[in-house]
Amino acid sequence: MAATTVPSAPEAALKADVAALRTLLDGEHAEIRNLCRAWLSLPENAPRPDLPMEEHREQVLAWARTLADAGETSRGFPEEFGGRGQVGGAIAGFETLAFGDLSLLVKCGVQFGLFGGAVLHLGTRKHHEAYLSDITSLRLPGCFAMTETGHGSNVQQLATTATYDDATGEFVISTPDDDARKDYIGNAARDGRMAAVFAQLIVGGESRGVHALLVPLRDEDGNVLPNVRIEDCGSKLGLDGVDNGRIWFDDVRVPRENLLDRYASVSEEGVYHSPIENPTKRFFTMLGTLIQGRVSVCGASISATKVALAIAIRHAESRRQFGPGGRDGGEEVVLMDYRTHQRRLLPALAKVYALHFAQEDVVARLHHVFTSEEELDRERRELETLAAGLKAVATWHATGTIQECREACGGMGYLKGNRFAALKADTDVFTTFEGDNTVLLQLAAKNLLTDFRDQLGELDPLGTASFFAGQVWETVAERSAMREVLTRIADDLLPGRDDQEDLASREVQLELLRWRSSHIRSGVARRLKGGIDAGRDPFSVLLDCQDHLIAAARAYVDCVVLESFAAAVGRCEDPGTRALLDRVCDLYALSTIEADRGWFQEHGRLSSTRSKAVIKAVNTLCGTLRPHATDLIEALGIPETALGDAAPVARAEA
Amino acid sequence: MAATTVPSAPEAALKADVAALRTLLDGEHAEIRNLCRAWLSLPENAPRPDLPMEEHREQVLAWARTLADAGETSRGFPEEFGGRGQVGGAIAGFETLAFGDLSLLVKCGVQFGLFGGAVLHLGTRKHHEAYLSDITSLRLPGCFAMTETGHGSNVQQLATTATYDDATGEFVISTPDDDARKDYIGNAARDGRMAAVFAQLIVGGESRGVHALLVPLRDEDGNVLPNVRIEDCGSKLGLDGVDNGRIWFDDVRVPRENLLDRYASVSEEGVYHSPIENPTKRFFTMLGTLIQGRVSVCGASISATKVALAIAIRHAESRRQFGPGGRDGGEEVVLMDYRTHQRRLLPALAKVYALHFAQEDVVARLHHVFTSEEELDRERRELETLAAGLKAVATWHATGTIQECREACGGMGYLKGNRFAALKADTDVFTTFEGDNTVLLQLAAKNLLTDFRDQLGELDPLGTASFFAGQVWETVAERSAMREVLTRIADDLLPGRDDQEDLASREVQLELLRWRSSHIRSGVARRLKGGIDAGRDPFSVLLDCQDHLIAAARAYVDCVVLESFAAAVGRCEDPGTRALLDRVCDLYALSTIEADRGWFQEHGRLSSTRSKAVIKAVNTLCGTLRPHATDLIEALGIPETALGDAAPVARAEA
Repeated sequence: MAATTVPSAPEAALKADVAALRTLLDGEHAEIRNLCRAWLSLPENAPRPDLPMEEHREQVLAWARTLADAGETSRGFPEEFGGRGQVGGAIAGFETLAFGDLSLLVKCGVQFGLFGGAVLHLGTRKHHEAYLSDITSLRLPGCFAMTETGHGSNVQQLATTATYDDATGEFVISTPDDDARKDYIGNAARDGRMAAVFAQLIVGGESRGVHALLVPLRDEDGNVLPNVRIEDCGSKLGLDGVDNGRIWFDDVRVPRENLLDRYASVSEEGVYHSPIENPTKRFFTMLGTLIQGRVSVCGASISATKVALAIAIRHAESRRQFGPGGRDGGEEVVLMDYRTHQRRLLPALAKVYALHFAQEDVVARLHHVFTSEEELDRERRELETLAAGLKAVATWHATGTIQECREACGGMGYLKGNRFAALKADTDVFTTFEGDNTVLLQLAAKNLLTDFRDQLGELDPLGTASFFAGQVWETVAERSAMREVLTRIADDLLPGRDDQEDLASREVQLELLRWRSSHIRSGVARRLKGGIDAGRDPFSVLLDCQDHLIAAARAYVDCVVLESFAAAVGRCEDPGTRALLDRVCDLYALSTIEADRGWFQEHGRLSSTRSKAVIKAVNTLCGTLRPHATDLIEALGIPETALGDAAPVARAEA
Repeated sequence: MAATTVPSAPEAALKADVAALRTLLDGEHAEIRNLCRAWLSLPENAPRPDLPMEEHREQVLAWARTLADAGETSRGFPEEFGGRGQVGGAIAGFETLAFGDLSLLVKCGVQFGLFGGAVLHLGTRKHHEAYLSDITSLRLPGCFAMTETGHGSNVQQLATTATYDDATGEFVISTPDDDARKDYIGNAARDGRMAAVFAQLIVGGESRGVHALLVPLRDEDGNVLPNVRIEDCGSKLGLDGVDNGRIWFDDVRVPRENLLDRYASVSEEGVYHSPIENPTKRFFTMLGTLIQGRVSVCGASISATKVALAIAIRHAESRRQFGPGGRDGGEEVVLMDYRTHQRRLLPALAKVYALHFAQEDVVARLHHVFTSEEELDRERRELETLAAGLKAVATWHATGTIQECREACGGMGYLKGNRFAALKADTDVFTTFEGDNTVLLQLAAKNLLTDFRDQLGELDPLGTASFFAGQVWETVAERSAMREVLTRIADDLLPGRDDQEDLASREVQLELLRWRSSHIRSGVARRLKGGIDAGRDPFSVLLDCQDHLIAAARAYVDCVVLESFAAAVGRCEDPGTRALLDRVCDLYALSTIEADRGWFQEHGRLSSTRSKAVIKAVNTLCGTLRPHATDLIEALGIPETALGDAAPVARAEA
């Protein structure tokens, strides 16, 4: 790797042009983001932390209707069905909406993203014509009924059945037992009139795997239909404005046309046909089209993290406690001047900037894949890997940062008016819905390891083991992983090779993260192969390597995120802003390296001296960026209404 | 350090005698713990997660009355005032109560611990006779009114005043501005009839620093008294069953006798007298007597962590997802068999065992200090250091573990019935009340660094800087820190000295943690001294070293915790249980070392090979302990009523 460094401005030149920075952050969807900001800024659309559950649900539905009436909710759908084909723009709008009430966000996600997305991507023209306009206008509230009590992550094993009855030309939907009831289904408890139900399709006595069908739940007056049973999930840890429920189907009959038949159809006579022969591949192709939900949750978690940091940094700029001044009756020191406080907030802020740009790149890729005329299989696969990994990393960053920010605001942070209660409670589930983070990282790792999925068909995350047991393994291993391993062993034998490198160099930072990513990837490949070769049970080999797989996925994400951030710095035209952003990027890179400095030392990539230098560099960067913290927050463009009670007080004092 | 190892039994001998283990865990206060368990096991005392705020407050008060009527709330008070002198026993009871509704716990903590504790420890015989029996019986609900909106951590700078009027023999209590209003005060919004108010005492025009006075708030019918204004803090992130409020005093007059005058009195003529001349030392002596609150919160956070782990481990033992069996229509694999899941839960379980025994030792020390006839200054100081540090470590462990457990339960963990919502929300504030964790760790570090406080008087956490600027410094540094530094430098020059050590040896583990503790301590001392010697502003020197100070305190706590756990293993008589506990202790020690393996490598105490061996050892221990997870949870003796909705389902499936 050539040691070219990003030209860095002297400290004195650091200066944010807040407007320019916001323009850079907002990117190509600035207009949509601003529309959404304006909507959130209306007092009647401000979060209402104290509404009781039923009133909150009522309010959320009313808000969603306002958005639908304004045409904002059809943006991502094709123009011929009343949309505007703005796939990326729709996600940008969704991300902005996440500054506000997160129940509204999730309600919209369920209705327009999941339910609408299932009809759009899994259905065909007849479904689009019949339903899309009613869905995007919210005339037909609906559900995405995939998860069952017994199966949340391993959805290929769902137990609900849809059996074709060729005598009547209908599918019969059945819930065999309570473990197979649909559970935690948004829109089910109160508003949903139809559901996209995922069930094992049985045709002519043969099971064809999981497929989706449209099943009516309630009539126009909201009465639950015969043979459908719905139970309210009741009060939850958060997101009480979303009416999650459980659904049982007792031989509910729907016409044959209700099968969403883009990837598989059943003829009137009961002949099953799919263009994708391998049932596992077919199932994961269907799932793959629903990736927008995962990407949207990722973006939402980034927005929620920004809100928390904005509140905490404003508080830290006004709240004074301790210090020499206080002793003499003078002013105490603002919290933001304490290194402990900078350490709590600034690396997290740098990471949310990094995640923002990475998310923007993912959204652009998604837009490209979903609006292209071509199939773009490779791009789709890469997108899937990245979306899975980034969602896990971003949602965990949200959980950790929101908690840190709450604590950094002390008792004030514990009052309900200032939004931490809602931010904590509402975003908590982001780590486990739209794919459990731990499962997603394994999915990402599997994709990284194989890169040969076309030949293999799609596999669930733990299907990797049987793959490694198979004959394809040898080819894969020899071709990529093992060769890499050998190269790296040579590198490891050169002690202290990094001691002279410049930690402030972007190339050095990138190279460290890239090296870690490829090293872990080849390491885990070697272990898996070693286990299989030794004749061990593939599943137990996989269990042994689970934490290693997760480390591989994390390392990959860290790397891609830094690449996105570095590219964004390069796009920044204002010199002072660019210099500042460059330092923020340094802080992201070095605090990421610092967090895993145990690993870098273990693998000879940081000497002990160098490792200590990383800690020192992070401290220095915190001090460098501290005067710019408020600008960095202002540039995020969070509506005042989203900042709760605490912020205005903080501003008044500042 | 001699390399004697704790004799370890072969793997096969690991077997918990659950009853024996519970006896060991319950320790000397087993009877009190069991009484409390029995009370919590009554259906009417089970947590009620869905009560609206006002009903919750009503229920909490009713529960507290039941406990008071049963005489349970006077246990820790002296026998002559109706108590039983069981200081340690009272804390053990409080810890057990923390398995249940945490609003009840905090309500009791405010009434009996803080309000009762202030009267007991800061008052004199006349106050004890007048109030203690009414307080412990809950006939006189009261508040501990210390925190103000503007001052939570730096309470020495509180702005409320209590001015002596020698014309009437009264104190006049005043709130000068909104920043000085008492804030977040438990029992204030609804039930409190009196408050121990902390205010700057002004006698004869001279300010004498912060003192506590008893100030009536409401009459017997609950009407707020004239010149007192109270506002409800309203809904909070959690603990909605506690009626926190804000209080303003508009020249409220109280008789001279209402000054809690153990450490300072004012004569009728307005002459101030205190046995402690240094005002800072006086203030911190007063605060020091209130340490029981901090120790109690620490114990409560440990109990809440146990509940979360119990729910998550039960779920993990019954919930199946993925695995080779599922593919063939057979059984999927229980979550607990996954390494990722073991990694999430078992080191946290080991740490909660460790914290349990450390807490037990702290409680025993506290009991000794507070029931002894002698003054025990040194013991009191050590107790203060340890209580501050352990509270921070234990409450952060609670926050992190509860979150991890929630996620490990997936969607089920997000429903309100299963207690994670309450556990998360209610324990959140433990990290910032009874002393903000970051401030507490600095307090602990300061104590560790000086050990010379008697000569210096008491200092607030940031007063350390001026101390280091003073003349005493030279003596301290030369006598302890610097000598140690020189010894350690010699050690550092011996590369790989640890490569042959046995990681499973308790002595090796202890030595690693002890070495880190003393190394960081001397390192930070050297940096502070260096900065001061170079003529830098003491406060900015301190800011530079803040994260280092916190590291010193954490390292100290980790060390003491391991020592407590190791001693407890030694007390275990049943061989199989002891062997098991020995492994749990290994897991605690090695996962603690693993978490800071970057540091150990930086300081030459772990080679890269050795560091990797630590990771491997943690993985192995997780596998070793996995079959015993349920026993380890059962031994904690958590009442079924505390385990929420999810647990019975989990058990039924198991």
